[in-house]
Order: sequence, then structure tokens, then C-alpha cells
Amino acid sequence: MTNLPETPVSIASIEAAAHRLAGRVRRTPLLNSPFLDALVGRPLWIKAECLQHTGSFKFRGAWSAVSVLPEGTRGVIAYSSGNHAQGVAMAARLRGLPAVIVMPSDAPALKRANTAALGAEVVLYDRALESREEIGLKLAADRGLTLIKPYDEPLVIAGQGTAGLEIAEQAAEAGITEAEVLVPCGGGGLTSGVALALEARAPGFRVRPAEPQGFDDTARSLAAGEILRNERLDGSICDAILTPAPGQVTFPVLQRLCGPGLQITDDEALQAMVQAFLRLKIVVEPGGAAALAAALFRGDALPDRPLIVIASGGNVDPALFATALERFAPEIAAIS
Amino acid sequence: MTNLPETPVSIASIEAAAHRLAGRVRRTPLLNSPFLDALVGRPLWIKAECLQHTGSFKFRGAWSAVSVLPEGTRGVIAYSSGNHAQGVAMAARLRGLPAVIVMPSDAPALKRANTAALGAEVVLYDRALESREEIGLKLAADRGLTLIKPYDEPLVIAGQGTAGLEIAEQAAEAGITEAEVLVPCGGGGLTSGVALALEARAPGFRVRPAEPQGFDDTARSLAAGEILRNERLDGSICDAILTPAPGQVTFPVLQRLCGPGLQITDDEALQAMVQAFLRLKIVVEPGGAAALAAALFRGDALPDRPLIVIASGGNVDPALFATALERFAPEIAAIS
Repeated sequence: MTNLPETPVSIASIEAAAHRLAGRVRRTPLLNSPFLDALVGRPLWIKAECLQHTGSFKFRGAWSAVSVLPEGTRGVIAYSSGNHAQGVAMAARLRGLPAVIVMPSDAPALKRANTAALGAEVVLYDRALESREEIGLKLAADRGLTLIKPYDEPLVIAGQGTAGLEIAEQAAEAGITEAEVLVPCGGGGLTSGVALALEARAPGFRVRPAEPQGFDDTARSLAAGEILRNERLDGSICDAILTPAPGQVTFPVLQRLCGPGLQITDDEALQAMVQAFLRLKIVVEPGGAAALAAALFRGDALPDRPLIVIASGGNVDPALFATALERFAPEIAAIS
Repeated sequence: MTNLPETPVSIASIEAAAHRLAGRVRRTPLLNSPFLDALVGRPLWIKAECLQHTGSFKFRGAWSAVSVLPEGTRGVIAYSSGNHAQGVAMAARLRGLPAVIVMPSDAPALKRANTAALGAEVVLYDRALESREEIGLKLAADRGLTLIKPYDEPLVIAGQGTAGLEIAEQAAEAGITEAEVLVPCGGGGLTSGVALALEARAPGFRVRPAEPQGFDDTARSLAAGEILRNERLDGSICDAILTPAPGQVTFPVLQRLCGPGLQITDDEALQAMVQAFLRLKIVVEPGGAAALAAALFRGDALPDRPLIVIASGGNVDPALFATALERFAPEIAAIS
């Protein structure tokens, strides 16, 4: 097993990641809609990271880490419910490296299929009974692979932070100087990276993690001042952001710069997906829609400033998306 | 009734439109996917105009025309199956002008609702029995409104051509010097505007109109060397591109620069929508997916060069989208 080089988490490491990502990553658009502005009663902007390569922001962090691996690296390994998996698989393929991905057996079929189609070896585990960290570390040791952690890795956080650099630039172009920035939050890699970028580039912005109800480890940890764990890791459709707890690296950043957290229900995530379909013409998965759902349904908890939300991923199984449309689109189209 | 100022159709008018549109229009991304590249056996790029304001490229032409109207203009009128309607409604609202939109009674509910929600007065007509041109001209005369034609208007064509300027720039950034450019084609406003822009900025590109089978007026007109009409104007789900015939202004441009045309079926359009959902995370309507469908199913008819397709709009009724996912997603996910 080979380790990634140690890097501090800072704006400098995000800028260095942006340099490595230039030409590899998409500058995703910052979208808006007069219909959504009217619905939330203030300007609402959506950073469409579902349009990123592999359908989520995760490719940023994956390439940030994989691109620094030295010649002679034997391969990479990652554990992921599916978006980090695809990001690492694609980054490894671009580097010509083998990739092993440890995925929960209940990960969405689309995510499993895509990860395999990108050339990775997929190893399934039981989310309730087994520890993905243990499986990942053992495989890494046995095969001499470099572990690319999904969030608690400074190089990955730096890559995710490049989305924050773009938000700062795009918001400035749109004349936004103050905003609440809502971010779907699992282990906090995207949230902490974006918060660090905005601290340096858009100091009038405040970052809020958005989580599913019942899986609000980050919000509770922030309130308690210490890392608290989720009691369980299944039971929400927001698979992308069901993680055990904030990370050792991410939590101090979250604590210094973010919160309080916001919680949304599965049905609110589905309604946010339908709004994104109707008003923005983007495909967002449940976990990726958590921040948009918070903007739509938790506005009362937020200061009266413009909202920027990250739509962090779009890898949703078609049957679930069709169900969301059938359940909520008639009602939503009638309201607006 | 007030007429728009007369403008020749040229690269200069497209550049002037780009100047008026700067800061108003979104520079939509040029997307790709390794899955789609593998499927068509060559590089495939998708210009995502469904992400444009109002969900289609039509806002470009609408703002291009509405922005030149003098102070004291009493209002605008347009006839449209729904995308030009929304584009004109939003452009009029930005200018603070009343807008009257003449729409077919069978236009998708979402398009009718959006047009009204953008502040326009919607007047319905029977697509099979009445002439929208006659209704539009009479209302324009009665109320002193300026008619914004959907395609046969040089200022509108110039606005649509700005999508071609962006394609040329984005393709150059991606290192593409030769390509087949497939464009969903109704009356030819987008197709002719893009062709003019690419003639000047990307002379190695060839523009091909894509139309629904049975509504291939442009392909037949190009083959015959004269304007031929469609026999009917309903019977396809590709409502956005069901127009009577190529325009008097657009056809000479199409004849000089475009073709031969490609035809796709409704089911192929639905499958293209599902591919765009799965691989690109964008929402495309049937007519807007005609060019992507041609890329997926008519590649044999095209020289072996990279493909660029315009996904021209995303205003699809949710029930139809859900049906497309249920019918085709399982099969498509299994193939790839």
C-alpha cells in the first residue's frame, strides 16, 4: 500500500488542485429560474455539479488526488456508495491505473453499472454488517494499492473546494456579494472544501450543510462541538450523503466555518428533484437535491439573503426518478 | 402594428446579436460522455441549450429581436408551440412590454403554463384548422403589437446563430477542427443561424438538419431545391419542430450551407431523451432530442468525423418523460 503525499487543507491546496484540474474538469453552470426565485421569495442560484464528469462533483476530488500519484503507482482503491466510485474510476482510467472500488450491496444499480463500465473492479459489501474502511484497507495492503478516501483526505477536499472557487467567481459575475450557501453534506469533503474556498474568495457567504432527517451527524456534531455518529446508515433514499460521521480532517473546518445545519425529508428531496427537472432541466439525485430541498422548505431558518445551493450529483436510478415525477409533478405544476 | 427593423442575415448580424445578448444569455455547456462516445463509435458532443433561460435556445432569438425595439413600443406578439412563446414572454418581461402569444391548443401543458406564468397573454388556436400566421397578424394589427416571428426573421436567426458562435469557440477549446453538426430543425431558424456562424468560425463543420419522420419538410426541400410543405402538422411528439415548411429567409441559407437532412422516429427521440438523462444529466424534450437521436441511430449516414449535436430544448411534460424512462431505461441500461 502506498499513501498519498500529506498536504495541509488550505486555500493554497485548493488553488493547486484547480491548477491540476484545469482542462480536465467542467466549469459547471450557476443556474437560476424566475419560477424558483418566486417560490423561495428571494434570488436562488443552483451550482449544477450533476453536470460534472461522471455526474457528480466527486470527479474533482478524485482527479485532485489521482493526478499527484507518482509514476509506478500500482493502482488505486476507494470505498463509496457510488459517486466517489465513479469519480475515482474515471480518474484512474485517465491515468491508466487499475481501480478497485468497494461499494455497498444496496448502492443504486446505475452507480454500480457505471463504475464497472468505467473499468473499475467492483467489490460489494453489506452496509449494515461490514466496515468499508476495513475492507478497503485490507485490499489496499494485499495488492499495494493507494487508498483514495472519499472525504477525509486533504487532496480530495482540495479538489472539491475548486467548486467553491467557481461559485465565488460566478457569484461575483452575477453581482452577488452576500449569500447563504447550502451544500449536501455526507462526510463533509465538499462542504469543507467549498467553505475554505469561499472564506478566501467570498467572505460574505455562509456555508450550511444540508442532510437527511435522521442522518444529521454533521448538524448534531456542530451543535455538540464534537464528532457524533449516525445511529444507522440506511433508511433514506439520499444514499450519496449517508456517511457514518464527519471526518477527522473535515470536522475542524466545518466547525470553524459552517452551520448551523439543515435537515430535509426524503419526500422533500424528491420534490426538489422535480423542481430541478421542471425549472432547470437538470437531473439531480436525492442526496444531490438535499440543499435545493433545504432552500425550498427551510427558508424560514435562514437569514434573508440570496441562496446558492449545490446540486451535487445526478446519478439516480430511472425508476425512482419516474416515481418522483409521477408523485409530485402534477401537484408542483399546479402550485406554480 | 410596428415592424422590426430590416436586417440582413449575416455573420455581422450574428455578432451584433451576441453583443446584445452578452450578460443576458447563458453560455450553455458543451457536454460529452465516455458512454455515448462508445455507443456511437466516435467523439460525440452535446450543446445543452435545454439549459438556456426558459429551457430552450429560443430566448436567444427572442432577446435579439425584442432588445432592438424602440422606446414607445406597445407590445409584442408571437405564435409558437411553446418554446418561442416562453422566450418572447421572458424577453418582453425583461423589457417591461406586454406580450401576446398565439399557441396551438394541443401544446404541452407545461409550455402553456410557463408562458402564462412569465406574464404573457396566451391565445389558443386549433393547429389543424386555423392559421397561426393569420391570427397573429390580425392581433398585431388590431392592437399595434410588433410581431416576433419564430424563425423567418433575420433578427431572430441572428440570435439563434449565437449558439453557433459558442459551439465554434467551445469546439476549438476541445481541439475539434472537423465535425458533423446535427441540429433539430423546424422552420430552420436555429439551423440557418448556426450554419452561418460556423461558416465563418468553423469552416470544417457541416450542419445537418434533424427532423421527425413524416415531418421532413426541410430534408425534402433541400433534396428538391425548392420549399416543400409538410402534409400535416400533428402526429409526432416532437412538437417543438413541427412547422409547415422552411422559411423564405431560412431556406436560402439552409440550401447554401446545410444537409442532407436526417430523419428520426418518435421512439428514437424518446431513447435519446433517456440517454441524455442517464449520461448527461440533462432534461431534453422530444423535438430537442431529434439531433441526438440522429447521432445515435443514423450514424451510418454520416461521414466518420466527430459529431456535435444541439439539445435544443427541455420543456417536456413530466408524464411523458416518466413514460420514456419506464419504457426505455431498463433496456438502455442493460445494453451499455
